[in-house]
Amino acid sequence: MSERNMDAVEALFNPRRMAVVGASTNIGKWGYIIPSNILREGYKGELYLVNPKGGDIQGLPFHTSLAHIGKEIDLAMITIPAESVEGVMEDCARAGVKVAIVISGGFSESSPEGREMEKSLVETAHAHGIRLVGPNTMGITSAPWSLTALMPPVRPRPGHVAFAAQSGNLGTQMLGWGSYRGIGFSRFVCIGNECDLDFADYLEYFAHDDQTEVILLYVEGFKRPRRILELAEEISPRKPIVIYKAGGTRAGSRAAASHSAAMAGSREIYGGMIRQGGMIEARTTEEMLDFSDALVKMPVPRGRRTAILSWGGGWAVVAADLCERAGLDVAPLPDDVKRELGTILPSYWSKGNPVDMVGILDLDAHTRCLEVLATCPEYDTVVSLGTINASGAFGLKEAEGAKRDEKQKKLENVQRMYVHDRSTRFANRVVELMHELGKPIVTVGMPQRDMDSDDDSGFPRDKISIYTNPERAARVAAMLARRGEYLRSREA
Amino acid sequence: MSERNMDAVEALFNPRRMAVVGASTNIGKWGYIIPSNILREGYKGELYLVNPKGGDIQGLPFHTSLAHIGKEIDLAMITIPAESVEGVMEDCARAGVKVAIVISGGFSESSPEGREMEKSLVETAHAHGIRLVGPNTMGITSAPWSLTALMPPVRPRPGHVAFAAQSGNLGTQMLGWGSYRGIGFSRFVCIGNECDLDFADYLEYFAHDDQTEVILLYVEGFKRPRRILELAEEISPRKPIVIYKAGGTRAGSRAAASHSAAMAGSREIYGGMIRQGGMIEARTTEEMLDFSDALVKMPVPRGRRTAILSWGGGWAVVAADLCERAGLDVAPLPDDVKRELGTILPSYWSKGNPVDMVGILDLDAHTRCLEVLATCPEYDTVVSLGTINASGAFGLKEAEGAKRDEKQKKLENVQRMYVHDRSTRFANRVVELMHELGKPIVTVGMPQRDMDSDDDSGFPRDKISIYTNPERAARVAAMLARRGEYLRSREA
Repeated sequence: MSERNMDAVEALFNPRRMAVVGASTNIGKWGYIIPSNILREGYKGELYLVNPKGGDIQGLPFHTSLAHIGKEIDLAMITIPAESVEGVMEDCARAGVKVAIVISGGFSESSPEGREMEKSLVETAHAHGIRLVGPNTMGITSAPWSLTALMPPVRPRPGHVAFAAQSGNLGTQMLGWGSYRGIGFSRFVCIGNECDLDFADYLEYFAHDDQTEVILLYVEGFKRPRRILELAEEISPRKPIVIYKAGGTRAGSRAAASHSAAMAGSREIYGGMIRQGGMIEARTTEEMLDFSDALVKMPVPRGRRTAILSWGGGWAVVAADLCERAGLDVAPLPDDVKRELGTILPSYWSKGNPVDMVGILDLDAHTRCLEVLATCPEYDTVVSLGTINASGAFGLKEAEGAKRDEKQKKLENVQRMYVHDRSTRFANRVVELMHELGKPIVTVGMPQRDMDSDDDSGFPRDKISIYTNPERAARVAAMLARRGEYLRSREA
Repeated sequence: MSERNMDAVEALFNPRRMAVVGASTNIGKWGYIIPSNILREGYKGELYLVNPKGGDIQGLPFHTSLAHIGKEIDLAMITIPAESVEGVMEDCARAGVKVAIVISGGFSESSPEGREMEKSLVETAHAHGIRLVGPNTMGITSAPWSLTALMPPVRPRPGHVAFAAQSGNLGTQMLGWGSYRGIGFSRFVCIGNECDLDFADYLEYFAHDDQTEVILLYVEGFKRPRRILELAEEISPRKPIVIYKAGGTRAGSRAAASHSAAMAGSREIYGGMIRQGGMIEARTTEEMLDFSDALVKMPVPRGRRTAILSWGGGWAVVAADLCERAGLDVAPLPDDVKRELGTILPSYWSKGNPVDMVGILDLDAHTRCLEVLATCPEYDTVVSLGTINASGAFGLKEAEGAKRDEKQKKLENVQRMYVHDRSTRFANRVVELMHELGKPIVTVGMPQRDMDSDDDSGFPRDKISIYTNPERAARVAAMLARRGEYLRSREA
């Protein structure tokens, strides 16, 4: 079975030709929105639209039936009402469809009759050799094909995180957040009701997918927990699996039962499964993205010894607390490192770890301090705060409109350019050092907001994560250390 | 002593006339940057600049000494090198200066000699009847006077949070973040070395300041912990005090000793003090702002019974987990509420708490659901997810530049306007309901980023907090519930 399932998931994420059944010229309908999103993102395969009444979207004419396309279709997306879906399975079979995404709701999630209809749909589909995704799903994406077959107008960034989500609104919003934060996705699937293909199938596919470096799961409940555990144990030593398990409380599990009909299971059972499977638990929705992204962009450290570099003293204190509480070892500075830093920093620097750069404005000195700490073999990880995007940190951009003369405007421009230029240089050096040394350098930008994409000129956005507060950085650094320990325990 | 201290703090935050001693025409010097920031923000008092060599900033000429100004000066800001500061105390006294902010570093924070110099400075100042802030500080702000006397170019938003910070870089960055997130400040002081005026003085002043509704403290260590506790016990029943205590770990306390020379003390001692004083602990830097802001903008609930309203099912599950874990009671829906919601929502809605609005696009129906939940006497708090800024949530703004035709552009514009308009209406209704019912409504916008200020047309930015994820909302809702319990325990 597993091999046939893999053929279906293969067709799902790599469709040479796909059809949308239920295409519509009404801009308020999913049958319009989904094709228009697919066209907008420039799908590399061939798209066919099907509606017996005719019409077109952006000049792409509707075919009256799947059978009339006259080409072999790998993937069908079905947006017609629930009760009509089963009826198109025969047409799908004639057109050679391997897998169909049933977008439509109104099946097992909504009523006992819907449950019967879903059961019958699966039987008919299987009788025709067709595998199903959904029903009740918001769709899929696949970066290598520039395929964004979704209802919401998100525009995910291509990258190396594969994401299976048991929620359409949560999943697609995560794609949107990720895109804004520079996090790229290889594949996405909103699993819907899992009437046929399920979490285990997607997980198995992602494990062997060379476009995918990290796997992310949003889970309310697994239908085949044993198979998931078996797969996780096999995959985790090669490819990290980040998992957010929802529905762990009484209130949450009641909500999950109503949302995805998932048996959320106890926190203990899932906790044990996550540990045994070597999976990485995200405890907040923010960690889902932070952890996935970090595992794509940063190497895994050899231990827990962490050096902290901070522009100012307050953040140094806060970061030291956070790193120690997260289980990292804020180890003392070796004497030679102390001496070397003493040649870069003013006499009143902290002379300890965390290294407080006492607010010096020479951002190139920040880079030299970073180099000293990163190359020191006594440290496995460096956490660096305050250098990157320092202009945003102090709101330099906001001065427009205030009362000021030419001289002051000049000062602000100099500050902005200086800070932007140095910040980009620093970020590029971080990327180089991580590559050279195989050591994570976790950077906190502390701007007022996530960085704007239009600030990106020369900024290695796809190779570095910038966290907006030290809490996020400490949690990421500790997660990477745990991942390193897990990997070493497997090698031993 | 306390009364005289209050006179000094009064002069500090309400200076009719102030002077910057050490003004400079060099745009790289603090003596230029601070006056130019003061001018930019339009300080409502009279500003005088002092430098024996003459010159001007933005046409404001330098006086050769304080004595030559010929007017009584309330506040002096001193930016000259440490070793010269003591020498200007006599001039300050002649000009009637009540309080001097010593910006300059190089005192007790940097060396034993600096410590001696600081001691001597305090003696001389006191002999002349002058009280001191700092040394080694980044300055102060005071909203009623439009006074922003800071080195970093932050532009704090006026409002009702008073903030005393034992760190200049952390404190001023918080002002910047706050400004971006719609959080306003009444007063800010970077306390520096506390050679004279200290945390207890600022706290006492904020307690009686009618511009201040919430007090925020960033603390590495208190010099007079007993006095702080005494004050906190007296203030907390009237005005909330939010405190972030840094330096609680071994690594953090070492860092604090080097940064502010603070004896960070054990977490247990401070924990006891925070509880006994009825203070509200922020455990993350994000909570410092979230909690302060919530206490300004939201009423305190009568209990822990919490209704959750969510656009989609996944976020409903996540929010239910988070609220229950934060100690809130996600209580069942009363039958009449269930019936009423049933008349608004499609038949397949969740029929329980959390209320899953199953993705309906009619945002006015969201408002009606909110009204039903908020007015139900069985609930003390409502947490609402997904309606506000829904366009940001799905990245509607990012479609520029992609391939699309006129029809699709029209669709996007309609979506954007519809969503923006409804989102503003919803937010305004939230503000009204909170006011009418005295019940907090904690809203999660889940956009990809914090809202842009230029989206604000009609949006009640100063009256509502929008959290970017449900974790922040659950923590805020739970904090408000604890605050309510504290207040009721005091009344009893």
